[in-house]
Amino acid sequence: MFDVKSVDEALTIIENNFKDYKLDYELTSIDEANERILCQDIISEEDIPSFNRSTVDGYAVIASDTFGVSDAIPAQLNIIGEIKMGEKPSFVLKQGETCYIPTGGELPSNADGIVMIEYTENFDDGDVFISKACSPGNNVVYKGDDVVIGAKVIGSGTLLKPQDIGLLAALGYSEVKVKKKLRVGIISTGDEIIGISEKPIGSQVRDVNSYSLYAIVQTSFTTPVFYGIVPDDYNTLKEVVEKATVECDIVLISGGSSVGQKDVTSDVIDSLGYPGVLVHGIAVKPGKPTIIGKIGEKAVVGLPGHPASAFVVCNIFITHLINTMLGISKRSIPKVNGEMASNYPSNTGREEYLPVRVEKEHDRTIIYPVYGKSSLISILSKSNGYIHISRGSEGLNKGQLKEVVLWK
Amino acid sequence: MFDVKSVDEALTIIENNFKDYKLDYELTSIDEANERILCQDIISEEDIPSFNRSTVDGYAVIASDTFGVSDAIPAQLNIIGEIKMGEKPSFVLKQGETCYIPTGGELPSNADGIVMIEYTENFDDGDVFISKACSPGNNVVYKGDDVVIGAKVIGSGTLLKPQDIGLLAALGYSEVKVKKKLRVGIISTGDEIIGISEKPIGSQVRDVNSYSLYAIVQTSFTTPVFYGIVPDDYNTLKEVVEKATVECDIVLISGGSSVGQKDVTSDVIDSLGYPGVLVHGIAVKPGKPTIIGKIGEKAVVGLPGHPASAFVVCNIFITHLINTMLGISKRSIPKVNGEMASNYPSNTGREEYLPVRVEKEHDRTIIYPVYGKSSLISILSKSNGYIHISRGSEGLNKGQLKEVVLWK
Repeated sequence: MFDVKSVDEALTIIENNFKDYKLDYELTSIDEANERILCQDIISEEDIPSFNRSTVDGYAVIASDTFGVSDAIPAQLNIIGEIKMGEKPSFVLKQGETCYIPTGGELPSNADGIVMIEYTENFDDGDVFISKACSPGNNVVYKGDDVVIGAKVIGSGTLLKPQDIGLLAALGYSEVKVKKKLRVGIISTGDEIIGISEKPIGSQVRDVNSYSLYAIVQTSFTTPVFYGIVPDDYNTLKEVVEKATVECDIVLISGGSSVGQKDVTSDVIDSLGYPGVLVHGIAVKPGKPTIIGKIGEKAVVGLPGHPASAFVVCNIFITHLINTMLGISKRSIPKVNGEMASNYPSNTGREEYLPVRVEKEHDRTIIYPVYGKSSLISILSKSNGYIHISRGSEGLNKGQLKEVVLWK
Repeated sequence: MFDVKSVDEALTIIENNFKDYKLDYELTSIDEANERILCQDIISEEDIPSFNRSTVDGYAVIASDTFGVSDAIPAQLNIIGEIKMGEKPSFVLKQGETCYIPTGGELPSNADGIVMIEYTENFDDGDVFISKACSPGNNVVYKGDDVVIGAKVIGSGTLLKPQDIGLLAALGYSEVKVKKKLRVGIISTGDEIIGISEKPIGSQVRDVNSYSLYAIVQTSFTTPVFYGIVPDDYNTLKEVVEKATVECDIVLISGGSSVGQKDVTSDVIDSLGYPGVLVHGIAVKPGKPTIIGKIGEKAVVGLPGHPASAFVVCNIFITHLINTMLGISKRSIPKVNGEMASNYPSNTGREEYLPVRVEKEHDRTIIYPVYGKSSLISILSKSNGYIHISRGSEGLNKGQLKEVVLWK
């Protein structure tokens, strides 16, 4: 028999069992690599920039030529040329000489600073007046200042972001190795469940969970896969779960919330391989009848049939499972802080995840609990996140500050 | 001539000019509709649930049969049947009668409450003992409790989230009208810019901006389109911008940060149609040389050539432009609060957006400014968000609380 686990225990069991999950890599062009997981260390083979570069429009100088100058006593320097963007300077600067240089231009040899054009005056007679002193290094980015040859700039396992894509482009990578997308199979069970295009008869209900779970687990690094609706029958469910477990990395089975059905899901998981069911029941509201299982290296999870419960459990546990299997440790979870709009009593003895609507009102952020029985679907659509109420809490007071985790 | 605008002024100009942008709709299946913008009001044609439903496993009762019962004095009720999932009850409950009902099952006529199975005892002799009183409505969700016929449940213009997709499934929608994806054309300009697969010679630099901008603007509701690298030549640039403006809703032109080039971009925008350039220069660090233009109803924006500046400007202004054109008013911006790890002096007289790295350290959230000249690419890759320092600020103190906006 299984004990009901706390939320923290369940999250830890997920980490311990799935943190070493192996996933192959594939090559992808960098414009498709955003939000994918890098599978190689990126070591720079070049200095960036590859030359000493001006950061302003102005005149390249030997800094000592400008020491002590001012508006009243400017330096007069001889213009010996002009730097063109993208070209190598064809001349060398000597004492008393200068040249125009645009932002991004390469400094000529011997130049060690740039005076911004605002502090110069060019009378078109071949000389320029410099009215501001320049220290060596002023307005210059030196070769290798950004990245030096041999530096490890992005580590394997990084969830690539636009700023990393830019850096890959700068280093000349047109494609990179990334982890293949994690495949997440989705199964709905229940004799009462019908397809969304069908019209319910009697107490039939449409398959909500396949679609809301699909939307939650759909990311740049996952591929959700529908496996359809399966009746409450051990053999049929076993056949579908077996197929999904072969084809996917994670299998989600929602439904089976009645006593008999719950056993079917857990029996099927146990029958398909070792170690089978790891967690059977989590002390969380909503979502108590959650099952976490492992078949070989794959994860198979039983979620509640109630759409609102399945939604919350998926946001908390499946998101964590996906991140764990992909090694995404520091993915930021969008949160906002706000104040409770009203009291909220809670003494369920279980950790509670309460759907809320956060609204900005002038300078304040207000949290409105979205009330409703946990089986209601429409309440979720009115919410944009949830608050976590710990097991020992006696409830929340109006005006109390709370952190809201926004729905994925 | 144009005045340099403040950040707020620039954001307001974007709103005033692009908030009425018209975009056609297309039909999409609901599994592809997550994070798309709904283009129809969703009015329920059904009650949800479509029947009175049990929220627990237990026995359906006429509540008055249980009034006053306790462990010591249970009610004894006659079991007349069992409710099956998905089926319509074939019998009517009479006083003194009960039936087993699973979670999600339909209440038989006359039943008005469910006693959870934990408070019942069935000796398999045709009767069941009920040891807890039940009020009318206990453990029941009534027909239409979730959604009533005729209710507007999701409004046109909503950015659909997984919870909305679930609600659409519940209502029997297999496809919905959504706004077409906004096409964002991306152009890099500069004689010094080369393709990412090329090796720089002299002071050439690779095209970083096309790729980082592509990654930033790539969302479920946009399609970025590359238009390549264009030299600093008025006629060539005009030709490419004209083509991009026909094919896209927004055109981004990065580069042209030297004085001469800046004029080319702004002249091209003015030459292609009314009203032309709206903003030429924003008092923001980094990103001052930003140009916002409008050709017909389309947006054409000139971004700085510095990769780090283009990145910040794109995050702040282009994200706002996209949201404005699509009518996404309340899209939540991921933010975290933290404390400054060190002092940061700032007295530029301009609003400043400083790249930072936010780290969770035990229970504290620490903000590390990522230092570096604004032309460095590698600093961005070390950051995961930015802080906004207002124009009048004298800088920030160690330990000071600040809000970090996470990079898109």
